[in-house]
Amino acid sequence: MSTPTTRTDATITDITVTPIAVQDPPLLNSVGVHQSYALRAILQVRTDAGLVGLSEAYGDDPTLDRLNRASAALAGLSIWDLNGLNRRVAVALGEVAPDSPTELAGAPSVAKAIASTVSAFEVALYDLQGKATGLRVCDLLGGAVREEVPFSAYLFYKWAGHPGAEPDSFGEALDPDGIVAQARRLVDRYGFGSLKLKGGVFPPEEEIAAIRALRDAFPGHPLRLDPNANWTVETSHRVAEQLSGVLEYLEDPAGGIDGMAQVAARTDLPLATNMCVTTFDDIPPAVAAGAVRIVLSDHHFWGGLRASQKLAGICETFGLGLSMHSNTHLGVSLAAMTHLAAATSNLTYACDTHSVWQVEEVIEPGAIAVRDGAVRVPPGPGLGVTLDEDSLARLHEQYLRCGIRRRDDITPMRAVHPDWTGARPRF
Amino acid sequence: MSTPTTRTDATITDITVTPIAVQDPPLLNSVGVHQSYALRAILQVRTDAGLVGLSEAYGDDPTLDRLNRASAALAGLSIWDLNGLNRRVAVALGEVAPDSPTELAGAPSVAKAIASTVSAFEVALYDLQGKATGLRVCDLLGGAVREEVPFSAYLFYKWAGHPGAEPDSFGEALDPDGIVAQARRLVDRYGFGSLKLKGGVFPPEEEIAAIRALRDAFPGHPLRLDPNANWTVETSHRVAEQLSGVLEYLEDPAGGIDGMAQVAARTDLPLATNMCVTTFDDIPPAVAAGAVRIVLSDHHFWGGLRASQKLAGICETFGLGLSMHSNTHLGVSLAAMTHLAAATSNLTYACDTHSVWQVEEVIEPGAIAVRDGAVRVPPGPGLGVTLDEDSLARLHEQYLRCGIRRRDDITPMRAVHPDWTGARPRF
Ligand SMILES: [Mg+2]
Ligand SMILES: [Mg+2]
Repeated sequence: MSTPTTRTDATITDITVTPIAVQDPPLLNSVGVHQSYALRAILQVRTDAGLVGLSEAYGDDPTLDRLNRASAALAGLSIWDLNGLNRRVAVALGEVAPDSPTELAGAPSVAKAIASTVSAFEVALYDLQGKATGLRVCDLLGGAVREEVPFSAYLFYKWAGHPGAEPDSFGEALDPDGIVAQARRLVDRYGFGSLKLKGGVFPPEEEIAAIRALRDAFPGHPLRLDPNANWTVETSHRVAEQLSGVLEYLEDPAGGIDGMAQVAARTDLPLATNMCVTTFDDIPPAVAAGAVRIVLSDHHFWGGLRASQKLAGICETFGLGLSMHSNTHLGVSLAAMTHLAAATSNLTYACDTHSVWQVEEVIEPGAIAVRDGAVRVPPGPGLGVTLDEDSLARLHEQYLRCGIRRRDDITPMRAVHPDWTGARPRF
Repeated sequence: MSTPTTRTDATITDITVTPIAVQDPPLLNSVGVHQSYALRAILQVRTDAGLVGLSEAYGDDPTLDRLNRASAALAGLSIWDLNGLNRRVAVALGEVAPDSPTELAGAPSVAKAIASTVSAFEVALYDLQGKATGLRVCDLLGGAVREEVPFSAYLFYKWAGHPGAEPDSFGEALDPDGIVAQARRLVDRYGFGSLKLKGGVFPPEEEIAAIRALRDAFPGHPLRLDPNANWTVETSHRVAEQLSGVLEYLEDPAGGIDGMAQVAARTDLPLATNMCVTTFDDIPPAVAAGAVRIVLSDHHFWGGLRASQKLAGICETFGLGLSMHSNTHLGVSLAAMTHLAAATSNLTYACDTHSVWQVEEVIEPGAIAVRDGAVRVPPGPGLGVTLDEDSLARLHEQYLRCGIRRRDDITPMRAVHPDWTGARPRF
């Protein structure tokens, strides 16, 4: 590194990784149901220039272990040395165990474990680069091609409340009427222009009925359905036939590149995935098989913002569409997702976000929110969000208290349905 | 753009495009012979912060026209807004004529004309970003994975001098002995650890003999041969069979993705290209056909440093090797090539450069040079090179005087061989 003429270089001095737990409603999916709390980790990366960079990552035990092991290897790293970050994390983790909190985002792998660890720090480095230069993260990523990033309303079948607890504020949604009512509330409140239903929960005919009800209620809204590979190829064919021309895309109807390719071969409905293409290694076989037409990126597990841009470049080159996947997250992740999407010209689909389902937050209010179906890029510098230290402490206390240490959608479902296995495909 | 806390943002105020001509020796290739002068353009991009960013581009008439038309559309652009640069250049050029000075780098196209125009400005913007932040361009590209970038000795068949002129200082090389002597001089002087012979000039048997002579004289040096698609598929098969195990890679033996795929199907010799894969549109068919195993990037026509990183990501993902192509260039381009290669982890082959054939330079001496077969990354900020205003003026005068306005390797060859057409494949 050269001697700076302006003080924009800085090196990492120390890193704090704080696990937190946030209340999560009983959202249903193909594996089971969300636990009462979702785990996240908040990273604070400090530099010798006195700046603090923020990031938000998964908060399960295996992730925390990796974040802590990697943190110990990052002192002295320049905030600009993203290649050095990759190298140091890979060395620090060595032969990491391929646990993954992203059971709905493809098979776990060592590569993905390293990628998600790199991502957690890389976002903080971009936040630091922005704070050092006065620039927004999207500017550091090549410049905003849009100042407002459209997001879709993420609709879920859900119980009225967690078993044994009071009903939550979101209401029950277990049939087409419930889903339409949920969509209405979200559209009225946030102005969403696209609707996505998390499916794979009920027999396909019921979910087809819900999609048709949404189509009737929101004739101008693009619709998506995501059964998370809970259907056989045969079932997928049947549903695709009925929803051809109704859906904007069908997300992961069947499992695996082969399964998706078999579905794709017999439908003109665009197929999307965040399950069978989740690492760069998955791309060549998926392209060769013609398995999908849209990839849902997610900087958390693809390896960060730069890796997501690499994915975007590949999608552009191979004629694949690009959308964005979401796990339960808070405002730091939403800011990173928004900056990335703002700087990615071929991210032309509305992004997914679980934001509307979170009643707790870890950043100071006002910086970032869904309005008119979109999130305006925070003005920065960096990510443009500020940690609320009191909230962080409270959510960390909640983490210590709640006892949850990994995401597990099966056990809480088994508490209600003792024979539940979560095995797929179920339909 | 947010209000900077540090003054690192800046916008373009004006741009100077200066065409220059530099003496070029009579290097032979499949199309003909280099003219007495090679054309380049030097860009000086000035900002409201008083900084000047440098870049070097092709200097032929169609390129100059595009550079000037695009320059007129760039006032007010932020030095960080690379996406905005793409957009503005595409709009400014509209339906540009697909002329191209890179006849040895694939068919001309509108996309390539836009890409090469974007590249010319993008390099200057990176230089400006570096000057504004005190960082090197390689740091802005993700950090140096190597501080010394290996280059290969670019060997050429050549005449003693241009017809009617005195012999130049490089000497004649028209047979195996001449090529070995040339290689010896370059290796002794610059320490090159890899050797590349520009072929397609003499009947393949003579070039095979030259490669064998190089192998004998430099047993530890990786060797490459590049006949620029001057061979039929049959000839390529024959040469590949004889040089299997001798060459590190064989570059563009036959023309087109189909031709290369036919060659690849019958040899274990890795095939490389800077002719059949020269835009992102070429990649999917080349991958599907298994046409090449190595792509030679070139930021000048792939669309800049960021586009070259995109290409690198694609090569990494699809298991393709990555090397770097060169046209005749001076020190500003060499600096850009070096920063890019330094920040590209999977650029594992020694890069090509014509540098050693240029006796004139446009930058102040000392910043950048080939030593021990490699170029050390200039310490910056930005590209780390400084324009020599006197040299620029002199080389511009030379441009005005020489009368050459486009690259044309055919006409000077025809002056010697009146029946010369440059048509390929010749063997
Ligand atoms: Mg999904
Ligand atoms: Mg070549």
